[in-house]
Amino acid sequence: MSLSLQIPMRWGDMDAYGHINNVEIVRILEEARVHAFGPPAGTGLPGVEVELPIFADLPEGIQALVVEHRIKYLASLHYRNVPAKVDVWISAVKGASFTVAYAIFDPVAGTKCVIAETTLAYYDEPAGQLIRLLPEKKQMLSALLGEPNFR
Amino acid sequence: MSLSLQIPMRWGDMDAYGHINNVEIVRILEEARVHAFGPPAGTGLPGVEVELPIFADLPEGIQALVVEHRIKYLASLHYRNVPAKVDVWISAVKGASFTVAYAIFDPVAGTKCVIAETTLAYYDEPAGQLIRLLPEKKQMLSALLGEPNFR
Amino acid sequence: MSLSLQIPMRWGDMDAYGHINNVEIVRILEEARVHAFGPPAGTGLPGVEVELPIFADLPEGIQALVVEHRIKYLASLHYRNVPAKVDVWISAVKGASFTVAYAIFDPVAGTKCVIAETTLAYYDEPAGQLIRLLPEKKQMLSALLGEPNFR
Amino acid sequence: MSLSLQIPMRWGDMDAYGHINNVEIVRILEEARVHAFGPPAGTGLPGVEVELPIFADLPEGIQALVVEHRIKYLASLHYRNVPAKVDVWISAVKGASFTVAYAIFDPVAGTKCVIAETTLAYYDEPAGQLIRLLPEKKQMLSALLGEPNFR
Repeated sequence: MSLSLQIPMRWGDMDAYGHINNVEIVRILEEARVHAFGPPAGTGLPGVEVELPIFADLPEGIQALVVEHRIKYLASLHYRNVPAKVDVWISAVKGASFTVAYAIFDPVAGTKCVIAETTLAYYDEPAGQLIRLLPEKKQMLSALLGEPNFR
Repeated sequence: MSLSLQIPMRWGDMDAYGHINNVEIVRILEEARVHAFGPPAGTGLPGVEVELPIFADLPEGIQALVVEHRIKYLASLHYRNVPAKVDVWISAVKGASFTVAYAIFDPVAGTKCVIAETTLAYYDEPAGQLIRLLPEKKQMLSALLGEPNFR
Repeated sequence: MSLSLQIPMRWGDMDAYGHINNVEIVRILEEARVHAFGPPAGTGLPGVEVELPIFADLPEGIQALVVEHRIKYLASLHYRNVPAKVDVWISAVKGASFTVAYAIFDPVAGTKCVIAETTLAYYDEPAGQLIRLLPEKKQMLSALLGEPNFR
Repeated sequence: MSLSLQIPMRWGDMDAYGHINNVEIVRILEEARVHAFGPPAGTGLPGVEVELPIFADLPEGIQALVVEHRIKYLASLHYRNVPAKVDVWISAVKGASFTVAYAIFDPVAGTKCVIAETTLAYYDEPAGQLIRLLPEKKQMLSALLGEPNFR
């Protein structure tokens, strides 16, 4: 199973080459995580319902940190005044981390432009250490388990 | 008359103060212009219909340039996972420039957070000079004429 | 008297027009304030000496907020792999706010590309109110007093 | 052999967590490439000398495209008002692509915060196809060959 999200591009995401800059693609991945799992700092709610509120209910002081990104640019993503289509699923769940997988599609041409994976961990900021995933979070994440993008 | 637009915020628009950064507010104004008038470089279409296609049909080599911004921050804009409400209208039309006026509202609390104005001019890039507004553009802009935010 | 600062541009500050985007100019103004007055959240030090440490010693919970920007774009700022030259001075000191004035120059061609002013106020975040400038801050600021860019 | 670069952070690179945002780390990698190899669109020069002008002399229409990023975040990078220390070297040279490897260090604490690799390819935009590396480029790149960050 995967979530199919609509993530808006901004005109300013283009660089001097006239396509969406590779760094802004990583911003679009961040937005896809926020749409799917909720705003990580616990701000921004209530508003639209979050698909899978993995971040939305984090206790004060617990941060969802990016541990690793892997991003493959298959084709230029052109700016459109309609949102990019971003598929999001989970490709791994471990004791203290999990991996989000994505595919970004041009919403007009339908081209698959980017595949990516982000590994995240929960960090207890006051205690200064990573924390283990709670069983109920693991269960929520497992509902979205799918194939990895990279081997 | 004014256009009432929905401009998405991004989680990454927040700065270390935990609210939408003053610079990202200016990015939101840029997005409001693109939503209202079309993408300035002529890219990005077709997609959603543009309210008032002032930029969308610019000939190759003609750029819509920002000549001046004036931005008043009335209250902090907090990040929401729903779009900011941005009202857009025209506060001046001159021979070779026009002024866009905006008000940005917190979409949850309803607070008016920002008022702003941007003066734009058309620039003929190959010729290296500003160009006059065409009568039909002036007429389109006049339909949105309203009160200035600053005197 | 004014401070003459070296503020680096980034290649990614360019937009699809191939020059420094108007929004990134506002980011360059933010950086100029940080170089001149110190990082506002009190982070980032020690490092290089701050010219006029107006922000650098703010007590916990006191924020330096942007109240108003006025920015005039006189000429396109082209990307250079050397820092932009930014002159910074103070154009007004009031009871609870002060105004920073700037001029941005192309570091290769020498062209004056942008003039701008930013009005800032100190905000007591826990108390939820603006606070008055301390006499010693006023005195520091007065040393940089110069002509306003706008009348 | 590796290049040791000084890449400035910006105050605005921090997110609501109060450290340099993971996306802005990718911007810092872009800047490191520009410092090491020259501005990719051929703009921005003359200015400071480029260490290894791999991008700086690209003919009109040839673009250096990011094909893949892999980024491992080892520790939070805290904002400093002095530049981050970024080591850059080459970890692979192939027929039509090459891989840049990086390590980002906190300039105050000395901590290694990020390791990363970016694979780049040259793209002939008018012809719409990737092009092979010229022998002289391969030779320049080989002078910086070192160990990969990922296996």
